[in-house]
Amino acid sequence: MIKPWKQIGTKQLGKFRIFDVRADRKISPRTKVEHDFFVIGCANWVNVLAITPDQRLVMVQQYRHGSNTVELEIPGGMIDKKDASPVTAGVRELREETGYAGKKARLAGKIFPNPAIMSNICYTVIVENCQCVHPVEWDSGEDIVTKLVPLADIPKLVGQGKIQHSLVVVALYYLELWQRGLGKKLR
Amino acid sequence: MIKPWKQIGTKQLGKFRIFDVRADRKISPRTKVEHDFFVIGCANWVNVLAITPDQRLVMVQQYRHGSNTVELEIPGGMIDKKDASPVTAGVRELREETGYAGKKARLAGKIFPNPAIMSNICYTVIVENCQCVHPVEWDSGEDIVTKLVPLADIPKLVGQGKIQHSLVVVALYYLELWQRGLGKKLR
Repeated sequence: MIKPWKQIGTKQLGKFRIFDVRADRKISPRTKVEHDFFVIGCANWVNVLAITPDQRLVMVQQYRHGSNTVELEIPGGMIDKKDASPVTAGVRELREETGYAGKKARLAGKIFPNPAIMSNICYTVIVENCQCVHPVEWDSGEDIVTKLVPLADIPKLVGQGKIQHSLVVVALYYLELWQRGLGKKLR
Repeated sequence: MIKPWKQIGTKQLGKFRIFDVRADRKISPRTKVEHDFFVIGCANWVNVLAITPDQRLVMVQQYRHGSNTVELEIPGGMIDKKDASPVTAGVRELREETGYAGKKARLAGKIFPNPAIMSNICYTVIVENCQCVHPVEWDSGEDIVTKLVPLADIPKLVGQGKIQHSLVVVALYYLELWQRGLGKKLR
């Protein structure tokens, strides 16, 4: 049985606009030895499975500045304080990045991007019957091309390594599991 | 067509033992405006799909200090400079964390943990015919319980949110795709 570690201190080490870094000091429940753990604090994130009436997925291509590569992803971003819920944040990001909107928006999953060193959650929102109904609203640092990809092609694209963002791959697995009736009912 | 951004500078902002933070200054190919992007630099990671002869997956339960939760995961860790390849790193992590070893170790996938803000890669290694043959070698900060989980139970565990580490879920999707003949041949 794994026990939680008791936290006995924390120290803010740096703020970097979209994340900060802190050291949490904790005691091992097994050895009683104290350790410092570096933790990256971030807003929660959301990504969106936006499906069109003809069973295509609304995807976005963009340049990513961590990897220095162009990635094929699904729309998403940070959940703002003014977003009422992960679902409304997902609907907003979908509209801003692609101009698409749809119906029956709901949670399809939630995941820790990296529970070892990050404290935040990434929610996956699914939206059906999506259509392009708004002009896009990009940030000045965003350059986004929208692509409609048949749902049937997704597993092969993941298997062939054409989709390389881990959180996008997680969302696509949730989509498969939801289609197979193995998804969890989430609010 | 999305173009790469030209980098015109970089500045190291902090070192935090297992990762560092830098600001990369780049010019937008579309607007020509300069932007700073914060990037987390890390060693590459590896996680391991270790399968027993009776079709069970070697999983580990451990306390995670980013999320402050006990997580059900697969073995894995950082690729060290002394590891000859991601595959040898995976075999080493499997042995150290669980005492298991097997045959036909090979790459099953690679992914960007977060191409927006992280520069590193996470490799997934698959090992078959795994058996417990060594004593475990935990770091002083590790507390690990090994669990053998039938492969047939994995999709439901992911769908029900019992497996919450994004990189583990990615590896499990690769396992499914590999079983369905949709995995990429990787070296």
